[in-house]
Amino acid sequence: MNKGLGDMAAEGGREHPSLLLCSLSLNLILASLFLRASPFFRRDDELTWSREAAAEAEAAAMVSCSGHGRAFLDGDLSEDGSLVCDCNSCYAGADCSEFLPDCAAEVNSGDPLFLEPFWMKKRGSSAIMLTGWHRMSYSFGHGSRKSARLERAIRELHKVVGNAVTDGRFIVFGHGSTQLFTAAVHALSCPPPSHASPAKVVSAVPYYGAYQLQTDLFKSGEFEWQGDAYSWKINRSSVPNTRFVEFVTSPNNPDGQLNRAVLKGPNTTTIHDHAYYWPHFTAISEPADDDVMLFTMSKLTGHAGSRLGWAIVKDKGVFQRMMDYVDLNTLSVSHDSQLRALKLLNVALEKNGSEIFRFGYENMRSRWLRLERIVSHSERFSLQRLSPLYCNYFQRVSGPSPAYAWVRCEREEDRDCAKVMAEAGIIGRAGIVFGADPRYVRLSLLRAQDNFDLLEHKLQALVAQEEYVNTI
Amino acid sequence: MNKGLGDMAAEGGREHPSLLLCSLSLNLILASLFLRASPFFRRDDELTWSREAAAEAEAAAMVSCSGHGRAFLDGDLSEDGSLVCDCNSCYAGADCSEFLPDCAAEVNSGDPLFLEPFWMKKRGSSAIMLTGWHRMSYSFGHGSRKSARLERAIRELHKVVGNAVTDGRFIVFGHGSTQLFTAAVHALSCPPPSHASPAKVVSAVPYYGAYQLQTDLFKSGEFEWQGDAYSWKINRSSVPNTRFVEFVTSPNNPDGQLNRAVLKGPNTTTIHDHAYYWPHFTAISEPADDDVMLFTMSKLTGHAGSRLGWAIVKDKGVFQRMMDYVDLNTLSVSHDSQLRALKLLNVALEKNGSEIFRFGYENMRSRWLRLERIVSHSERFSLQRLSPLYCNYFQRVSGPSPAYAWVRCEREEDRDCAKVMAEAGIIGRAGIVFGADPRYVRLSLLRAQDNFDLLEHKLQALVAQEEYVNTI
Repeated sequence: MNKGLGDMAAEGGREHPSLLLCSLSLNLILASLFLRASPFFRRDDELTWSREAAAEAEAAAMVSCSGHGRAFLDGDLSEDGSLVCDCNSCYAGADCSEFLPDCAAEVNSGDPLFLEPFWMKKRGSSAIMLTGWHRMSYSFGHGSRKSARLERAIRELHKVVGNAVTDGRFIVFGHGSTQLFTAAVHALSCPPPSHASPAKVVSAVPYYGAYQLQTDLFKSGEFEWQGDAYSWKINRSSVPNTRFVEFVTSPNNPDGQLNRAVLKGPNTTTIHDHAYYWPHFTAISEPADDDVMLFTMSKLTGHAGSRLGWAIVKDKGVFQRMMDYVDLNTLSVSHDSQLRALKLLNVALEKNGSEIFRFGYENMRSRWLRLERIVSHSERFSLQRLSPLYCNYFQRVSGPSPAYAWVRCEREEDRDCAKVMAEAGIIGRAGIVFGADPRYVRLSLLRAQDNFDLLEHKLQALVAQEEYVNTI
Repeated sequence: MNKGLGDMAAEGGREHPSLLLCSLSLNLILASLFLRASPFFRRDDELTWSREAAAEAEAAAMVSCSGHGRAFLDGDLSEDGSLVCDCNSCYAGADCSEFLPDCAAEVNSGDPLFLEPFWMKKRGSSAIMLTGWHRMSYSFGHGSRKSARLERAIRELHKVVGNAVTDGRFIVFGHGSTQLFTAAVHALSCPPPSHASPAKVVSAVPYYGAYQLQTDLFKSGEFEWQGDAYSWKINRSSVPNTRFVEFVTSPNNPDGQLNRAVLKGPNTTTIHDHAYYWPHFTAISEPADDDVMLFTMSKLTGHAGSRLGWAIVKDKGVFQRMMDYVDLNTLSVSHDSQLRALKLLNVALEKNGSEIFRFGYENMRSRWLRLERIVSHSERFSLQRLSPLYCNYFQRVSGPSPAYAWVRCEREEDRDCAKVMAEAGIIGRAGIVFGADPRYVRLSLLRAQDNFDLLEHKLQALVAQEEYVNTI
């Protein structure tokens, strides 16, 4: 029993020649397996210099944050140099497992994190590697500051979804649609006729507050903010030669309504902000075909941080003035973001968009239903009314799935609805920010699931109080 | 001779038991090698979902473009779906091997591609993988729109290089320093005292033309462009209560001079554009400590396409107004670019920056020497004079290495120097764009090597004509 390998081999070899045969065959099999797997004999898809960055990204993705956060490559580092979790609001601790009990539901911002789980699921196809030398130049060649492939992907997606006409239209890229607000206002209000007063920039109440803030900051001799479009519909005759630029947001932020222009006439131009005109948030009834239409990655793929928006423009002169504006303001849009957007849109385009839009719609729809159910028990609060509509994209009637709840406080004494909510631990955006009555507040429904869950919980408690009062 | 493996094994086994021993040992070795190399038994650093993006990047890097171009991931596709080379100017063909003989040397733009080879060499450490869910939010948490780690890396680099004081200073990020021009002008000229005339925005001729173009486009009641700072030095007394904002560019674009403010006094503020104050382009004499200082990735790492610049600001109120401006203009700077910039700066910081700055300086220095040699044979053209200076960073005297040649046409009849150059196949930027005499033209020295080589060739030919004329 103390025989060594050598002794056994000698014995086996003498007595069972087939043993050697087996062993030799195994040699051949193992050698071929080794050669296939060996880094010295790489297949075409074997990696060399890219491994470091790939391994870094996988390591960050492996950091456990209890489903209430994630670690980012540029996140904070712990003392031992490892990446720290970036926790969702109201969660804390090294692995985000600690729920902060007195934490308010932060539903003020329009952070579109409801799509984050989609991209986590698509991690293989949606990752992109930026090499150190990727697109260092100011331009993409031939003097263009736009990725031609990204522009084609955008046109293709609009065609697939059927939400905007792009054939024969020009496309301007901007740092989010935010940058394009004033680029469009500038392009539409200039060159001013000599001695003309500044163009009046308006939008129907309730309007997205950034139009006002931005127009006020960048006002010039060319244009100035003039508030609610409805008030000018009535007073229009008092300023017969005045030029108007109207922001039309459809679906509207904050209330999800499919707005149309309020003002019409020869001196009136419109900017249609269609940031939310995607199947996540509304039924797609027809391809929009307005003069200047704004879209953004933020509300399409959820990548608010990439700062990439675009305008679809009919008129060449307007297009050129918008391009010049962006050019002088910031030159091109980040090439890093353009590459990433191309990758993300190609994933969105898979199966004609059915994966991302089903994911988006089902999430937003379920949140709206949950919210509606809670508010249906309340006499103190009401929600905007939205009807089911036939959606050409899904080819069926689809129920409302808005990005925001536009809540009205119905009680006489609840004049400041944002305050009422804040007292109940719900941080919304006050109606006055949208030019509206403070009796309204906007609650964001498109943030991370944790945010929505907390909102639901706090709102349920608030409505339950009411029921309790009714029963005593 | 017709024995099979089985026969041989049987025979070998009987006659040479050591054969079986060898074969069994080989099996053990091969099995252990296979297990190590096999994807079924990965080491910790083995990759899964990131392989696709990594392989894509490596495949793009493998496309052969003859050293006169490179293929980008978002580049054009050929009919078979493979990536097409993006050729340097004056090169064409599927692999960029075709030199276009009548092509002009395009030295108009300030595209900093001289650093591209550095990043190609650093391909392993400078690549970054963006996952589909990377930083989708508008913010980095805690309401901040800036990567705290990027801000720290920027401060560290300034400390290592010794070119700017950052301790106790605020940092604003912008989409390139371009966006920060007007952000700074706005912050310094507002809020205006009541009934004050707009602040006059000026810069000493020759100045970077974008200051004028941008100020003209964004002019408001707060500020307006008023040309050459020198002319106001003389006329200052005629406008005693007027506020001035002076752009001071040091080293100057176009002429590389270490400019100082022309205007001084109580109603005067300055914006110091230090885009070129890096060891690539000038000796570092001391840490700059101005009120508002602008820097950009574009001229530091060469990543113009990433659109990331920053301002270092002393005053908290000015800082806040600049932040508000960027916020309303474009919200945050692309998170994709911020992640990439962090990676690039960490590479730049290796060995205290000695690799990138030596590479940059040696390249720019050699180009300047080659240019000087050519122009030294000319009486028709002259270059700006720059002196060797002691560089604290390199700890030795370093000779000039400017980003641009500021060429003067000396012949009486050569009134339009850009035209003279264009006729010789050199496309520079005309002096008038810098508020200067058309007798000047700016030639860019920091583009790709191919660009510089062609410039050298064309300029040599132009000067040779002159010598030829002199000899007949």
